[in-house]
Amino acid sequence: MNALENLARYELSLPETSTPGGSYVSVNIRGNMAFVAIQFPIRNGDYLYQGRLGDEISIEQGYKAMELCALNVLAQVNMKIGFDNIIGLNHFDAYFQSGENWDDSPIVVNGASDLFVKVLEDRGRHSRAILGVHKLPRNFCVGLTATFTIMNE
Amino acid sequence: MNALENLARYELSLPETSTPGGSYVSVNIRGNMAFVAIQFPIRNGDYLYQGRLGDEISIEQGYKAMELCALNVLAQVNMKIGFDNIIGLNHFDAYFQSGENWDDSPIVVNGASDLFVKVLEDRGRHSRAILGVHKLPRNFCVGLTATFTIMNE
Amino acid sequence: MNALENLARYELSLPETSTPGGSYVSVNIRGNMAFVAIQFPIRNGDYLYQGRLGDEISIEQGYKAMELCALNVLAQVNMKIGFDNIIGLNHFDAYFQSGENWDDSPIVVNGASDLFVKVLEDRGRHSRAILGVHKLPRNFCVGLTATFTIMNE
Repeated sequence: MNALENLARYELSLPETSTPGGSYVSVNIRGNMAFVAIQFPIRNGDYLYQGRLGDEISIEQGYKAMELCALNVLAQVNMKIGFDNIIGLNHFDAYFQSGENWDDSPIVVNGASDLFVKVLEDRGRHSRAILGVHKLPRNFCVGLTATFTIMNE
Repeated sequence: MNALENLARYELSLPETSTPGGSYVSVNIRGNMAFVAIQFPIRNGDYLYQGRLGDEISIEQGYKAMELCALNVLAQVNMKIGFDNIIGLNHFDAYFQSGENWDDSPIVVNGASDLFVKVLEDRGRHSRAILGVHKLPRNFCVGLTATFTIMNE
Repeated sequence: MNALENLARYELSLPETSTPGGSYVSVNIRGNMAFVAIQFPIRNGDYLYQGRLGDEISIEQGYKAMELCALNVLAQVNMKIGFDNIIGLNHFDAYFQSGENWDDSPIVVNGASDLFVKVLEDRGRHSRAILGVHKLPRNFCVGLTATFTIMNE
């Protein structure tokens, strides 16, 4: 099945793409690589999942927040490149902010890993890093940056 | 205009390049990609903008600090590759350290985004991520890592 | 000398490769790039060097921990690709967690930089970034993510 069929199958929908708040672009294409600027758990302009994992945000909410970040990555890439022109996801960096003794980030980040594989299947295969940062903008609990290999322009 | 003319136009100058403090290189070329090691707000050997954003460092100073990081990236790349051999900036990761409730990182990071576009014009187009880290070396308020697509060697 | 001879020369051994704890892969190949998921100081299933640099973990231990992360990167890459198919290391991101006023991360991260150059010689040449994060999973003091340029599949 293609990516749009997979989205429908899992009852997922692509959020509206947000606009950069600075002199950068959301998806930058150079040769056969696409670089996606950090995406946050925003749906159609609404800032969601604000707080710290383990404090205000549960594991289940964190998983959904990472899924939403991944959906925003896909929405940006689809708008700029189109799913058909993606060869595959390379790698993503997942960022989170948590309370002091919280240590379940791999489970939460699976929200993004699972989503990419569900939607892009083998093209969603990826490596990843997880970073517990001091804090994220707008008190978002998670954020996500990714790169893709694409057909040459 | 070319990059050097743009630098002059904006009354900017490239700092002296710093030397790696370890067995790594400041610019690593592999095929048509150049990977730039993290650069800090250092001008000609002087460590500047040390402290936390929102505490000792203002937004205006932070913007200038990010601009200086970007100038150091450009100085490294120009020395190793030459501006003429750059196809374009891909992506940068901007790091900062701040006080507890400070949340203006996008404004500060525009210091780097604006600089790259001023100097490299369309070749300075990029995606970005912003990471609020626990702390940076030498108490620098910001740091910057970037990759470029370049002409094949 | 080749990579395996260099490992023997320095009395180093590759650890057993760990298995991803989620729907991602340890090494993702896309075209001529290999993306390695974050590796931690784990030797044959044992979690080592847990704690904060400057508190429970000394500089010497941190150096060995970074070296072990780099050995895990090499083990993953060798298993998936084989050392002979590596053109070169591109860049790595080193992550650490430390006590409040600790500032010796460049020395510790040389544990990875030195190891890559010892084993891969000129192919181990790299740029790097160092990030002091809020915390790492399982209380590891350090972690490492890397990308390589490889022969085309």
